[in-house]
Amino acid sequence: MPATVILTKRTRFCAAHRLNCPSLTPEENLRLYDKCNNENGHGHNYQLIVKIRGEIDPVTGMVINLNELKKIIKERIIVKLDHKHLNHDVDFLEGINPTAENVVVAIWEQLNPAIGDNLLYELELIETENNAVFYRG
Amino acid sequence: MPATVILTKRTRFCAAHRLNCPSLTPEENLRLYDKCNNENGHGHNYQLIVKIRGEIDPVTGMVINLNELKKIIKERIIVKLDHKHLNHDVDFLEGINPTAENVVVAIWEQLNPAIGDNLLYELELIETENNAVFYRG
Amino acid sequence: MPATVILTKRTRFCAAHRLNCPSLTPEENLRLYDKCNNENGHGHNYQLIVKIRGEIDPVTGMVINLNELKKIIKERIIVKLDHKHLNHDVDFLEGINPTAENVVVAIWEQLNPAIGDNLLYELELIETENNAVFYRG
Amino acid sequence: MPATVILTKRTRFCAAHRLNCPSLTPEENLRLYDKCNNENGHGHNYQLIVKIRGEIDPVTGMVINLNELKKIIKERIIVKLDHKHLNHDVDFLEGINPTAENVVVAIWEQLNPAIGDNLLYELELIETENNAVFYRG
Amino acid sequence: MPATVILTKRTRFCAAHRLNCPSLTPEENLRLYDKCNNENGHGHNYQLIVKIRGEIDPVTGMVINLNELKKIIKERIIVKLDHKHLNHDVDFLEGINPTAENVVVAIWEQLNPAIGDNLLYELELIETENNAVFYRG
Amino acid sequence: MPATVILTKRTRFCAAHRLNCPSLTPEENLRLYDKCNNENGHGHNYQLIVKIRGEIDPVTGMVINLNELKKIIKERIIVKLDHKHLNHDVDFLEGINPTAENVVVAIWEQLNPAIGDNLLYELELIETENNAVFYRG
Repeated sequence: MPATVILTKRTRFCAAHRLNCPSLTPEENLRLYDKCNNENGHGHNYQLIVKIRGEIDPVTGMVINLNELKKIIKERIIVKLDHKHLNHDVDFLEGINPTAENVVVAIWEQLNPAIGDNLLYELELIETENNAVFYRG
Repeated sequence: MPATVILTKRTRFCAAHRLNCPSLTPEENLRLYDKCNNENGHGHNYQLIVKIRGEIDPVTGMVINLNELKKIIKERIIVKLDHKHLNHDVDFLEGINPTAENVVVAIWEQLNPAIGDNLLYELELIETENNAVFYRG
Repeated sequence: MPATVILTKRTRFCAAHRLNCPSLTPEENLRLYDKCNNENGHGHNYQLIVKIRGEIDPVTGMVINLNELKKIIKERIIVKLDHKHLNHDVDFLEGINPTAENVVVAIWEQLNPAIGDNLLYELELIETENNAVFYRG
Repeated sequence: MPATVILTKRTRFCAAHRLNCPSLTPEENLRLYDKCNNENGHGHNYQLIVKIRGEIDPVTGMVINLNELKKIIKERIIVKLDHKHLNHDVDFLEGINPTAENVVVAIWEQLNPAIGDNLLYELELIETENNAVFYRG
Repeated sequence: MPATVILTKRTRFCAAHRLNCPSLTPEENLRLYDKCNNENGHGHNYQLIVKIRGEIDPVTGMVINLNELKKIIKERIIVKLDHKHLNHDVDFLEGINPTAENVVVAIWEQLNPAIGDNLLYELELIETENNAVFYRG
Repeated sequence: MPATVILTKRTRFCAAHRLNCPSLTPEENLRLYDKCNNENGHGHNYQLIVKIRGEIDPVTGMVINLNELKKIIKERIIVKLDHKHLNHDVDFLEGINPTAENVVVAIWEQLNPAIGDNLLYELELIETENNAVFYRG
């Protein structure tokens, strides 16, 4: 039986965002999100780590064709998020308050059907050297 | 149903320690802990990664209020361990041989009741760029 | 004669910015700055490394009191830039197109008189893991 | 009951390799492995992270003697892979197409019986800052 | 007078190489280069940091157009070195023993005339996390 | 004429230290060094980067034999500082208040005569990810 491994691919995007919940008052938003609520936004060098889990193909020695995976991540995520404002520029984030938690779930919804075959195992979204989130669908 | 994610927060503390087991002879301690048994101790830039697991709050878009989490980690761990000697200066490490294994378990005992709600998922304690331990309670 | 050393202190700030030159047309700006010209801006985890050069004080063994240096950097730079939009929120960047080159020079103007004694040797401003600028006044 | 923790040890080796599957034509190999199929090979600074899972010994405060673990990793893996060509110089990789997936499985076969006691929990093999694989036996 | 700054751009390439001097005997080569003399070669994840020094253009706020710089580095260096064997595959390294010292000088000869205007200030070539070389022409 | 390059070698040591100046009162020491004055000491994962500057030997393609350099650094510095207390265990630091500034100068005095030929160009001593010192003799 072929061995099952997890393969990870890191990509990066630089984006602006602002944390703000429309159902709360400005005072509540400021208390809740503190400096992340700054009206003009701030930004991060995000790192996205896509983790694929599957059996090693006995012929190719690979779990997935890495070039095809890179193409999916680039077209579905990086082109849409890199050098953008997450609150204003991204179709699949419309109406979503861009906390790291919400963004990682939204990215999963974009990547999972495109990768298919139940291969997507986990996403890791790193916001700063001190903060990250993980999601497994 | 709200999505469940893992959120991680890295903090750091610089501390001295010495590995020594009182129930063993000096020769046994030296053989066992080697250079980590040096009588005057040595030290590390420790990194502590606190991992929280929970559902995303549909209103705030967050698993936990990060400022409150940072306050708990600072008061319960960083203030007590940063720029201290783990064998001599820390109340919750009294009588404990400060291997990375023992320290990570002791930190869990401090953090878990303070964070509550079954939210603490894992601790990662990084001693050097080559050595780390993980604990899940 | 006391030895002269260079001492470095890294700090960080997360900010949004947009590259745009008001004396150019929108087409020229887009051609010049490409994706950095995105109207709603984007953002970075900036790292600022402040480099101090001076003689070691024979009594204290230090070139400068690091706590005082940290206080100056925090009050003059970090509080003003962290979680802000560099085009809209920062008094000392008003009217300045926030390229890394322009920002590092503006930071120098803020820090140099406050540190004094000809101690500030160089600033390094890291925008991404691939891009940085250095300035020596 | 003693606490169970995971302990990790990072080591490194610099090696050359070429991805090529003998059962495929040259054209198929080029299409599949792209630049990784370059006839004269290329190379990486590999990082291997060995993860041990077990109970903390109440006397020593350790899961495993780290010096003994390092000796096993050095003799069985590092001496054989460091500054070698993975396609030509390594006994336990003979006849194996050295994709990261295949290499991490082969390293597991070398380390697991030598470490014993069901202690080996996971291997992480990092090929570049963007690519890694994980294997749990 | 416009301020003068240094701007740095990091790129990466993965390559194989072997250290061997044809004017020395096999024994001398082995003694001199040790494991780097392995007949089938080994490899590295090289990082190349290109450092540009010049005045900030008062209109653009930039020292150099970063997209043009990236294009030069890609065409002249990365395409030729990435996923190649430095002893066999690179036109501008023919007949050169690929020590880090020799490679960084050869890269300078490729980049300096293409960048022009006396802008190239320094190259940094990182071979491993512990070894690097710097060259200023 | 052979090209002149700078070659750097990173090494690491884990040590404890305490900042305290015997000519000052306990109150003055506490005010000056703050938490670094903790009586039982604290510690760091120090990184030492040794920088060699010289012409490339036309035969070997090297500035210095890296194995010989590593041996000097290991014998003169790492064996004496690694897993030690800088205030108590190191002959060449006796009577020296172990600030990063004082330690880097003391390391220079140990390395410079052993390396010889005016080859030692600069030392960089990294105490934490935020603090470092540089010395050029």
